[in-house]
Amino acid sequence: MINVIGIGQNRENMTLGALKAIEESDVIIGYKKYINQIEDLISDKEIVKKGMGDEIARAEFAIQKSLEGQTVSLISSGDPGVFGMANVLYQIVSKYDDDVEIKVYPGVSALNYASAKLGAPLHDFAAISLSNILTPLSEIEKKLRLALEANLIVAIYNPISKTRKEPFRLFKQCVLDIKGEDALIGIVDSTYEPAKETIVKAKDLTEDIVNMSCTLIVGNDLTYVQDDKLITPRGYVIRSKIHPLSQNHYEKFLNGEVAHGPNRECDFYPCHYEGQYCDFCYCPFYPCGDSATGGEWIKGKNVWNCKDCTWLHDKDSVEYLREPIENILEDVEDLKTKKKTLLKLRKACLLKTNPNNL
Amino acid sequence: MINVIGIGQNRENMTLGALKAIEESDVIIGYKKYINQIEDLISDKEIVKKGMGDEIARAEFAIQKSLEGQTVSLISSGDPGVFGMANVLYQIVSKYDDDVEIKVYPGVSALNYASAKLGAPLHDFAAISLSNILTPLSEIEKKLRLALEANLIVAIYNPISKTRKEPFRLFKQCVLDIKGEDALIGIVDSTYEPAKETIVKAKDLTEDIVNMSCTLIVGNDLTYVQDDKLITPRGYVIRSKIHPLSQNHYEKFLNGEVAHGPNRECDFYPCHYEGQYCDFCYCPFYPCGDSATGGEWIKGKNVWNCKDCTWLHDKDSVEYLREPIENILEDVEDLKTKKKTLLKLRKACLLKTNPNNL
Repeated sequence: MINVIGIGQNRENMTLGALKAIEESDVIIGYKKYINQIEDLISDKEIVKKGMGDEIARAEFAIQKSLEGQTVSLISSGDPGVFGMANVLYQIVSKYDDDVEIKVYPGVSALNYASAKLGAPLHDFAAISLSNILTPLSEIEKKLRLALEANLIVAIYNPISKTRKEPFRLFKQCVLDIKGEDALIGIVDSTYEPAKETIVKAKDLTEDIVNMSCTLIVGNDLTYVQDDKLITPRGYVIRSKIHPLSQNHYEKFLNGEVAHGPNRECDFYPCHYEGQYCDFCYCPFYPCGDSATGGEWIKGKNVWNCKDCTWLHDKDSVEYLREPIENILEDVEDLKTKKKTLLKLRKACLLKTNPNNL
Repeated sequence: MINVIGIGQNRENMTLGALKAIEESDVIIGYKKYINQIEDLISDKEIVKKGMGDEIARAEFAIQKSLEGQTVSLISSGDPGVFGMANVLYQIVSKYDDDVEIKVYPGVSALNYASAKLGAPLHDFAAISLSNILTPLSEIEKKLRLALEANLIVAIYNPISKTRKEPFRLFKQCVLDIKGEDALIGIVDSTYEPAKETIVKAKDLTEDIVNMSCTLIVGNDLTYVQDDKLITPRGYVIRSKIHPLSQNHYEKFLNGEVAHGPNRECDFYPCHYEGQYCDFCYCPFYPCGDSATGGEWIKGKNVWNCKDCTWLHDKDSVEYLREPIENILEDVEDLKTKKKTLLKLRKACLLKTNPNNL
């Protein structure tokens, strides 16, 4: 019996199942750094610490011990199914005639741990290893570029080592090319315990702030920083009343009385900037509760303030939104009753017009 | 103090940190299904079970209780940072003037659990939710298509519900379009405890075998099934001697004596199929140990058998490989000493020539 066990990044993040399986094992096999992490649990067991490069030897040894009738724990950091020992063990065990029972104990992988340290940066995401020991750089580049273009959040494993810097440089270039120099990147450095987190912009991502024990998380086009936390809004519906001035505007809008483009007749023009489009004088998505576009709560007042959010008055946004909004709204009340449909339209527009470049 | 806690899919997959934080909390808030999962741990606490749609109410209530000085645990299944409660809590807490301390406890997310149940399907991967309640279908489709094109493994959250079938149909179509009807998909159904796993081909993925408690994992171009497990090879170096006939072939190869294309003069032609290219009569990657291309171990004999692996004799593969192999090999011994470089070349060629379509 081989238990393939992820022990998480530290004891707090070890699962109850992993703990029990380790306690019930006769033989513990793993890279020495991970074995040291569980030393207090295994003093009565046969312990085999091997170096980082000896993965094959570790897997073969686990199989041998299992075939001798021992219960073996093969230890990975994080989750053994995420760039850990599970794949290689399954590849190697197929050599053997005899049945070897394998159970994989999943764990808290580095990306889950890093995400929790940083705040809540994940939504749809990709996890990509920059190790090019057995993976061609062309493959790594293709994955990075398509994942970033897809607007997935991208978690990076094995970002750099003393001898392997080329994939990191390639990664940075891909982020700059596709996301731009202001893209947000969280760095969680596990050489510290607990790990130390930093948030930088892509332009400030230098080799001296990253090492092989770091996990990186690149935000998507909507990710923002709030009180030192990296947040990707998931979106949610906030129930609220329609402001009388908004009511008034959308009554005119529905009657076809709102012109397209800047409204230079208006006493308040330009309330945001010269050239702004005024089709949506009041925001049809208000309150969105999404700081990605510059709005924020007035703290303690339960009022959403969007004075610093201007994308809704940009030509591109208005041209994208005008027709669908006309189709969605049959009545001013629809601003409340069709909120989910409106929020989806808002998101589609944001991803099309890329608010981070505004 | 709000602990945002992922309790994993079952008790075995709960972390020690989550257990401790729950024990130390005064108030436990969560969706009723998740609360029921930890009922034995919380009998002395104030418990607030809310329905699935009440996420905002749960977050607001947690903040209220925390502001009253209570220690609160806000419970998510899996990992709260992966389509869980962390994002929405951070969005909502920004309304409040007062400091609310938040700690996120990461957990074993559905994709980690599903991967362990299925075998070892993950390598570089993406996780995408098919929930289109607040996400436009166009965004979901773009992410799916680019992730599949990137040859990422793709884990699917929220695949279907009784009223939401359109994203699932879109997903299946994307897989068929990009990966083809034989693409392998693992389904892990958590309506059972322990969850029940199934592996199907894309063409056999029907709505009746998937429900809202399923996690799906779509393999990449190299994923294969071995003894009912879904495996994506990570690759590893197998040390081995060079066979005398291979030695002989590559001596000729290095002397420029191996012709390009089919070798109809050979007594054994066609050893695989009529029209095969014979430039690499013996495999320069042998033994690759990678069943993705049809090779397998002769069980119990420590011999890698590649009689069913033929991609190396295809015109496209040979034309891709001939020049780089000529550049890599300066000496026959390089078949051993440059194994990593050769394996990277093999992988680049496989991804270019797509062995699943062979």
